[in-house]
Amino acid sequence: MVEQREQIIMGVDPGTNITGYGIIKATGNKIELVNYGIIDLRKIKDDHAIKLKRIFERILSLIEEFLPDEFAIEAPFYGKNVQSMLKLGRAQGVAMAAALFREVPIAEYAPKKVKMSITGKGGASKEQVNSMLERILSFKFDHKMASMDASDGIAVALCHCFQRGKHGKPAGGNLNVKGKGGGWSSYIKNNPDRLK
Amino acid sequence: MVEQREQIIMGVDPGTNITGYGIIKATGNKIELVNYGIIDLRKIKDDHAIKLKRIFERILSLIEEFLPDEFAIEAPFYGKNVQSMLKLGRAQGVAMAAALFREVPIAEYAPKKVKMSITGKGGASKEQVNSMLERILSFKFDHKMASMDASDGIAVALCHCFQRGKHGKPAGGNLNVKGKGGGWSSYIKNNPDRLK
Repeated sequence: MVEQREQIIMGVDPGTNITGYGIIKATGNKIELVNYGIIDLRKIKDDHAIKLKRIFERILSLIEEFLPDEFAIEAPFYGKNVQSMLKLGRAQGVAMAAALFREVPIAEYAPKKVKMSITGKGGASKEQVNSMLERILSFKFDHKMASMDASDGIAVALCHCFQRGKHGKPAGGNLNVKGKGGGWSSYIKNNPDRLK
Repeated sequence: MVEQREQIIMGVDPGTNITGYGIIKATGNKIELVNYGIIDLRKIKDDHAIKLKRIFERILSLIEEFLPDEFAIEAPFYGKNVQSMLKLGRAQGVAMAAALFREVPIAEYAPKKVKMSITGKGGASKEQVNSMLERILSFKFDHKMASMDASDGIAVALCHCFQRGKHGKPAGGNLNVKGKGGGWSSYIKNNPDRLK
């Protein structure tokens, strides 16, 4: 018998235009979508600090509201250029700071890994991912709403849930910065005292 | 008569190996070094999340101890490759998150700008910068100590102090992400309500 402990997982896809998030609850083999949405930063022109502040505050307030046990981010490791990667790194950094501040362990996954985990194909289309998310989590995206932009956040939360090897999908290591096995979440899992 | 208001400026040079910082106090034309040091992350191997957590916590605790009015970071905009820029961006992001969390306005300066501001030469050597820091702030680096690594943090704090145009050095705009004039600190100064 698998222990039926309830786990709340928050997934975030940080970006300086739109940051999407999804919060899921896993109880045994049952997975529910608790909340999802976006932090829309497109109207804040050229004010990078204000964008970062908004990401940090919003993620922090979501963490304080939903009290996730674990935090997963979608983290591309390749970008068009160094400047866009620096900006992306900052957006990731402030989102991670909110989780670190509240002592929530962080895992990170490359986009391909997320798609692979949800659909079985690393090259799956956005539509294929969304369709699987709707099936697995028994909900429907409102296609007229900006909610679609939250799908990467939901997907990375679900990916992390599967990676933890509890839901019949093959478990794998999550990506870590140096490309070695294990990654942050396994490190943190194995070294809980380091996060005190 | 210039108003003799006391201003505390904290400067940080974020990095995932060593993060250096300096805290200065400017009262009219008098500038004092209040504190400086490093956050040494070299012993934390491959544990990027732990490094980020340590940067965030330490910067936050320094902000809470010294209550800076303004926060300046040294921010190179060009790096060897996208992966190193992503890591640097994350380090900058968590440091900035600590300042944003405590509502301290942020400014950022490119390394060349910092050197130019301190020595008059954008291509000044580390030794030239350190020598000027010692003269301006009336202190001596202990050359045997890791304190030398704090010099970029002290330098960016002093650069920000000069940029504010209060100490006889030419004032200039600080760098902003899109390369336009003004930058974050001027934006934040002109839009204080946006930071509420």
